Amino acid sequence: MKRIDWNALDEGARAAVLQRPVQAVSDALRAGVQAIFDDVATRGDAALREFTAKFDGVTLDDFEVGEDEFARAREQVPANVQAAIAEAASRIEAFHRAGIARPYEVETAPGLLCRRVQRPIPRVGLYVPAGSAPLPSTALMLCIPARLAGCRDVTLCTPPRKDGSADPAVLLAARQAPGVRVFKLGGAQAIAAMAQGTARVPRCDKLFGPGNAWVDEAKRQAAQRPGGIAIDMPAGPSEVLVIADRGANAAFVAADLLSQAEHGPDSQVLLLTDSAALLEAVALEVDAQLARLPRADIARRALEASRLVLVRDIEQAIAISDAYAPEHLILAVREPRAWLERIGNAGSIFLGDWTPEALGDYCSGGNHVLPTGGAARAWSGLSVASFQKAITVQEATDAGIRATGPCAAVLAHAEGLQAHARAVELRLERAA
Amino acid sequence: MKRIDWNALDEGARAAVLQRPVQAVSDALRAGVQAIFDDVATRGDAALREFTAKFDGVTLDDFEVGEDEFARAREQVPANVQAAIAEAASRIEAFHRAGIARPYEVETAPGLLCRRVQRPIPRVGLYVPAGSAPLPSTALMLCIPARLAGCRDVTLCTPPRKDGSADPAVLLAARQAPGVRVFKLGGAQAIAAMAQGTARVPRCDKLFGPGNAWVDEAKRQAAQRPGGIAIDMPAGPSEVLVIADRGANAAFVAADLLSQAEHGPDSQVLLLTDSAALLEAVALEVDAQLARLPRADIARRALEASRLVLVRDIEQAIAISDAYAPEHLILAVREPRAWLERIGNAGSIFLGDWTPEALGDYCSGGNHVLPTGGAARAWSGLSVASFQKAITVQEATDAGIRATGPCAAVLAHAEGLQAHARAVELRLERAA
Ligand SMILES: [Zn+2]
Ligand SMILES: [Zn+2]
Repeated sequence: MKRIDWNALDEGARAAVLQRPVQAVSDALRAGVQAIFDDVATRGDAALREFTAKFDGVTLDDFEVGEDEFARAREQVPANVQAAIAEAASRIEAFHRAGIARPYEVETAPGLLCRRVQRPIPRVGLYVPAGSAPLPSTALMLCIPARLAGCRDVTLCTPPRKDGSADPAVLLAARQAPGVRVFKLGGAQAIAAMAQGTARVPRCDKLFGPGNAWVDEAKRQAAQRPGGIAIDMPAGPSEVLVIADRGANAAFVAADLLSQAEHGPDSQVLLLTDSAALLEAVALEVDAQLARLPRADIARRALEASRLVLVRDIEQAIAISDAYAPEHLILAVREPRAWLERIGNAGSIFLGDWTPEALGDYCSGGNHVLPTGGAARAWSGLSVASFQKAITVQEATDAGIRATGPCAAVLAHAEGLQAHARAVELRLERAA
Repeated sequence: MKRIDWNALDEGARAAVLQRPVQAVSDALRAGVQAIFDDVATRGDAALREFTAKFDGVTLDDFEVGEDEFARAREQVPANVQAAIAEAASRIEAFHRAGIARPYEVETAPGLLCRRVQRPIPRVGLYVPAGSAPLPSTALMLCIPARLAGCRDVTLCTPPRKDGSADPAVLLAARQAPGVRVFKLGGAQAIAAMAQGTARVPRCDKLFGPGNAWVDEAKRQAAQRPGGIAIDMPAGPSEVLVIADRGANAAFVAADLLSQAEHGPDSQVLLLTDSAALLEAVALEVDAQLARLPRADIARRALEASRLVLVRDIEQAIAISDAYAPEHLILAVREPRAWLERIGNAGSIFLGDWTPEALGDYCSGGNHVLPTGGAARAWSGLSVASFQKAITVQEATDAGIRATGPCAAVLAHAEGLQAHARAVELRLERAA
């Protein structure tokens, strides 16, 4: 792994250390996704069937998972995995329940009540990738907040396996939220179906979940279409930034770096430490642990782009981290809480030696769908509020319009909007 | 205005009534905006200066509004307008203060604390259009929540007038939120500057505010760029849907329809009523009031596409409204509160006869930057939370990892992510 002494670098070199690889979307990918959208719009389920045969290698009569397949999944998933899914679900639910957005109201003038109330987004579409491994944890992270929000139609798409079935662990995870409908559809065609609707697949108002480059581009294109389809957040490779002091456990830090690296060859891994000794110990530990990993190939490729960075002090590390805005930030320092207030930009933070990032991936209760690529400056990880929207409600009595109408009329005239002024003045005449 | 009997229509005709005009972005517009982004990226402030000369007809040495120009604004704006700006600001602040997102925490297992904390988005860019009239109210709606959120750098762009000055009322509105920097830049070049940064204009993490087609397309392109720049919401023409019963005041309803219509020729205006008598009375009132309006030309063009719709009952009106998901919804019915719970999709709701939509545009306290074009199904109007993001924080003790680690390890193995499992198991060995 590449070692860097931050304070030996000039400004340009520092910027290069924090530079993420640009995820360029090729014209071919863009056009390919566009063609899938158009074909699904025109031919609906027939197009979905063809794309599924082509990309997933299986011909499906019906995409939707029926009760028999859910029942088979319960027989196929080992009992300890089923128990772990239920345990993770209960903690995710406990934490997310506290994040349900609530109404508030203010009487902003005598006789004028302003409220903000929440409503579930009626139709949400969830995507759970299969890729190199099935991801029941992602199904939990998407389904549980959707159910807590009270979304009316929850549609989950996940790619079929070669035998035409869905991954059984993903199905059991989806069943932690009753009422979720699961469709065996993957890739851009799944997103095109949920964005536009077909005879079989419901049209959705907001799309959630990670995916490959095709899924990411399809979500981007869905968000560009008229009708205001929303997406959860921009997509990008997963990232961890670890800040460790000399008291940190090198084996723990190395294991955390490796668990990020195994996500994919494009994973971003950064260590910032004020201890040269810890930096070397972590480098040795990474090599030792890497040798024993089944996904060592993937991790090794990710580590090629990773950095072990020596900094002056933890203060400097925090400043660098904030400029980078990591998806995952591990504070493997003494007194981590004292530093928390200083963090401005991060998706999810893990405090102290006993909180591996892997806990957040599965069962701390927090969501693992988080902003990447620097989006943590402006975006939040998923919560129940991501599945709700708010409506402002204002209610004036005749006293309320008398108290506030003159102000509105003056401003309307100042902006040259006489019909606005008239709508107020008419009422002021009657309310007098 | 076109009268329609909803229950005489078939499904296709009903869909046509609720169909919004598609806002197609021409290839020329898209390419033009792209060229502006590229030019601003390459040549920075020199490009901004040229675009400003070309589009706004004025050559500016410095874009930023200085203290002398703020001082002149205070002399130029009439005292009653200054007072109205201050009064509106105080109500907007009172309501928005209640909407500051707050932290919460849950101990999801013994020794495992999960928290969600908020941080201001550090650098925000606000756009206040000039167009047919200056919009000090929009400056209030953007600046006040940005300041309440605690955003570090608040940059506001608004087009210069022909004499090189900014609209003085917009400047006074911006001054209601101390520390906002105002730049005299308009159109796509303003968005390109805030999205990319120049020597003079700060780079921003999130962009807010309405604009013309160039501004809308520029915000869309900014959101597509790597780095996760966020935008407030998709743009579209302003809309009102009024639900009125036979007890409604036809003059008030007509005035509300007209105040929506005067926003622009593409404004969407719909009335749903269960009273044929009220429908005709409103139609007559619209004609009578229209004759006296300075912006009658604009309003008349908007009204050509508007609809007066007779429905069976208020229940049916609510269902139609929810399918349409209007930006503004006026409930000019008896007992409006009783119907509120039934509304699923709307940007902002105005209850009863004494609450004109114009109140919400200016000084009820609610925000007037709202989702249009059906986006109210999935998007919220602006609030302080739009200027904040949330970070999840998890903190385990050794007891916490003992309580939750085994669950995480089982799921990590099930997903084939052994490095994740190892990061947990290593700690379990030491915590035993
Ligand atoms: Zn992970
Ligand atoms: Zn208005």
